Amino acid sequence: MEIIEPKSLSGTMELLPGDQMLFDEIKNKIEKVYKSFGFLPIDTPAIERSDVLLAKAGGETEKQIYRFNKGDNDLSLRFDLTVPLAKYVAANINYLEFPFKRYQIAKVYRGEKAQKGRYREFYQADIDIIGKGELSLYNDSECVSVIYNIFKELNFGPFVININNRKIVSGLLAELGLEDKKMEVMRILDKKDKIGEEAVTELLEELGVNKTSIKMLKNFAGIKGSLKEVVEKLVSLKIKNSLYKEGVGELALVGSRLFELGVPEENFKVNLSIVRGLDYYTGTVFETFLTYYPNIGSVCSGGRYDNLAGYYTKEKLPGVGISIGLTRLFYQLREANLIKTDKLSLIDVLVLPFEEKFLPIACMVGKTIREQGLNVQVFAEDKKFKNKLAYADKLNIPYVVIIGEDEAKGKYVTIKNMKTHEQQNVGFKDLSKFFK
Amino acid sequence: MEIIEPKSLSGTMELLPGDQMLFDEIKNKIEKVYKSFGFLPIDTPAIERSDVLLAKAGGETEKQIYRFNKGDNDLSLRFDLTVPLAKYVAANINYLEFPFKRYQIAKVYRGEKAQKGRYREFYQADIDIIGKGELSLYNDSECVSVIYNIFKELNFGPFVININNRKIVSGLLAELGLEDKKMEVMRILDKKDKIGEEAVTELLEELGVNKTSIKMLKNFAGIKGSLKEVVEKLVSLKIKNSLYKEGVGELALVGSRLFELGVPEENFKVNLSIVRGLDYYTGTVFETFLTYYPNIGSVCSGGRYDNLAGYYTKEKLPGVGISIGLTRLFYQLREANLIKTDKLSLIDVLVLPFEEKFLPIACMVGKTIREQGLNVQVFAEDKKFKNKLAYADKLNIPYVVIIGEDEAKGKYVTIKNMKTHEQQNVGFKDLSKFFK
Repeated sequence: MEIIEPKSLSGTMELLPGDQMLFDEIKNKIEKVYKSFGFLPIDTPAIERSDVLLAKAGGETEKQIYRFNKGDNDLSLRFDLTVPLAKYVAANINYLEFPFKRYQIAKVYRGEKAQKGRYREFYQADIDIIGKGELSLYNDSECVSVIYNIFKELNFGPFVININNRKIVSGLLAELGLEDKKMEVMRILDKKDKIGEEAVTELLEELGVNKTSIKMLKNFAGIKGSLKEVVEKLVSLKIKNSLYKEGVGELALVGSRLFELGVPEENFKVNLSIVRGLDYYTGTVFETFLTYYPNIGSVCSGGRYDNLAGYYTKEKLPGVGISIGLTRLFYQLREANLIKTDKLSLIDVLVLPFEEKFLPIACMVGKTIREQGLNVQVFAEDKKFKNKLAYADKLNIPYVVIIGEDEAKGKYVTIKNMKTHEQQNVGFKDLSKFFK
Repeated sequence: MEIIEPKSLSGTMELLPGDQMLFDEIKNKIEKVYKSFGFLPIDTPAIERSDVLLAKAGGETEKQIYRFNKGDNDLSLRFDLTVPLAKYVAANINYLEFPFKRYQIAKVYRGEKAQKGRYREFYQADIDIIGKGELSLYNDSECVSVIYNIFKELNFGPFVININNRKIVSGLLAELGLEDKKMEVMRILDKKDKIGEEAVTELLEELGVNKTSIKMLKNFAGIKGSLKEVVEKLVSLKIKNSLYKEGVGELALVGSRLFELGVPEENFKVNLSIVRGLDYYTGTVFETFLTYYPNIGSVCSGGRYDNLAGYYTKEKLPGVGISIGLTRLFYQLREANLIKTDKLSLIDVLVLPFEEKFLPIACMVGKTIREQGLNVQVFAEDKKFKNKLAYADKLNIPYVVIIGEDEAKGKYVTIKNMKTHEQQNVGFKDLSKFFK
């Protein structure tokens, strides 16, 4: 028979079991925090009708879509979890309770060019809170609190959630008469951290922004400090534009509530230069950075939007949400050695019959220990005892339960702690108690 | 803006959150049992290279594949989890420990014609145990024990795991000189439960099987009873063929070990008419039926195979595994009213500030209760109090924590049990203790 090389598509992540357990552990921690704030699960299909999925798409997104025909159906793989959410909420609007809080942790697909750290199939871990008509600003603060609790739980070291409100810069630009150049100016300000202040000035001049306005924009972009200080400075600019004032008010309120939600001041800051995309977000925006790993970029981002599902329903559905690109994050954390890839085992106990004739006892012993809520593997293969122990060692299994001639006669087992190499005998009758 | 109807592709399952929680609960219970027997997680991509995925496929399977091109890549969506497992084991053979026990619970894709109860995207929940060169027969028994523990845990009523060994019928057919008609005869015997004994006789006659052999085949197919009785009857047929004898021996051993593994006799039986497919399985096979819902068909099937990955490696990899078609099972259980679709809530507590000014206290109260390990939603929207309570009711949230003027002044909350409608006051300081 011809042998075909068992290659996976590049740009997909396929882990060995040890790494997969670590990946799942991170995924489960995120899910647990999502649930702890009252988010409910949904599970939309990975395949959607192209007319529905691509209602909004265009340009780069559309080029990356995996799209195909099957029978009469023009189909596409989802490229994010937001469009499917919009479809879901619009389709089920009469059966959902609002505010509707959902989480979804699932794979999405983008036919990008394969390169290191870029994925064609990757997990996103999203939450969104959707209101019908209206949605309290409290939910913006809650999202920040969810991010805080996740990264505290994941324990990857210090992190800072950057918060801004897009109304502030929009209002400022309107005040300066730069509304028609809004997109360009925001794009330039957005790059401030990457290209430096001087380059920003040059780009703004090229765009035809006058000197007074550039000064004001740079003043604005230079504002730093605690939440209270930033808000005071923003107010002191004396901008009259109402959108600006609204944005400053929202930022102050969203920020103040973080104290009540238990987010320490060291874990968030106002950063007026983050604006996140140009169309989608309309109010609060956030990005999250690991203090010692700024190059990883934002590990969790999101924000407030005016209307989730305008393409599918006339009902106005404001929302706020966050998204974690889990696959990319895992890849980067592993590259940065922030994930310890050894010494994790799902299996608590390996039961080793010395010879096959002790297998019946091993089955019963395994069952007894399993009933205490532990994960137990019975090793039944005909191998040398040394190899059986090596198996436990390689899988990092912490306890080995040995059954041989003496044990069978004496109705006990020998329990070996694989870390300390200590051994002790425990009678069959006392097994439940021992492993409880 | 033009409104596009938010339709999903037919043949996909998209549940409301209440049902999704039930689905997830079933999925989690299955995963927990898999883990308890020492199976490790893997997560292969849903998209594979067509040359790899379709190495073995042909006929009906190939017609159902979602296949498409993107750039230079000829790609397909996986149609099961077994071929990806074969690829995975062959690709990682030097990095895995054998026996390799893995579970994978994931969606697979088949472009079938849409009809009720048929899915184009559905979950499979699989385990397999793969040996390198050899694999102990113990693992066959373990698979049965896993099935038993799953359906005991799921609590859908009485069930029986049907067990057979394909070597028995293969050996019998060799003995009768029917080896060249093996496929046809097995196909006919496989239909016995569906079409009845007389139709089986007719079909065998049409096939040119002589009367003595038909009598022997019918004798054989009529064998029933306890494991011990069946084995005795099989032995009493005095078939000399060595494959037959091997199969009877394996069946006896696999069955006897079920007692040691704690599978009660009422939950399994030997059924010589199940053979499961024609190529793939080579030894033990099993199917599982819910006693009161035979029409659902087998809810969990599997068996032993000689070689997992012959298309990808020259290493011989015998294995045994089971598969649960989770999406179809959920659909059928719901149709049969075996799943209770109400009164489940992921959210333990809804915190209701009477007015917005009590929201800061609500945030802190919510945080305190959440820290006790409970799932807590703070309801911040500006609605009538009646509507806030109705929200808790519709989401089946068991406890509501109310904060109004009196509570704020007195530094306590009013806790309402939504089932009994009982209310009680608990001081801020005693909240942790109360919800612990």
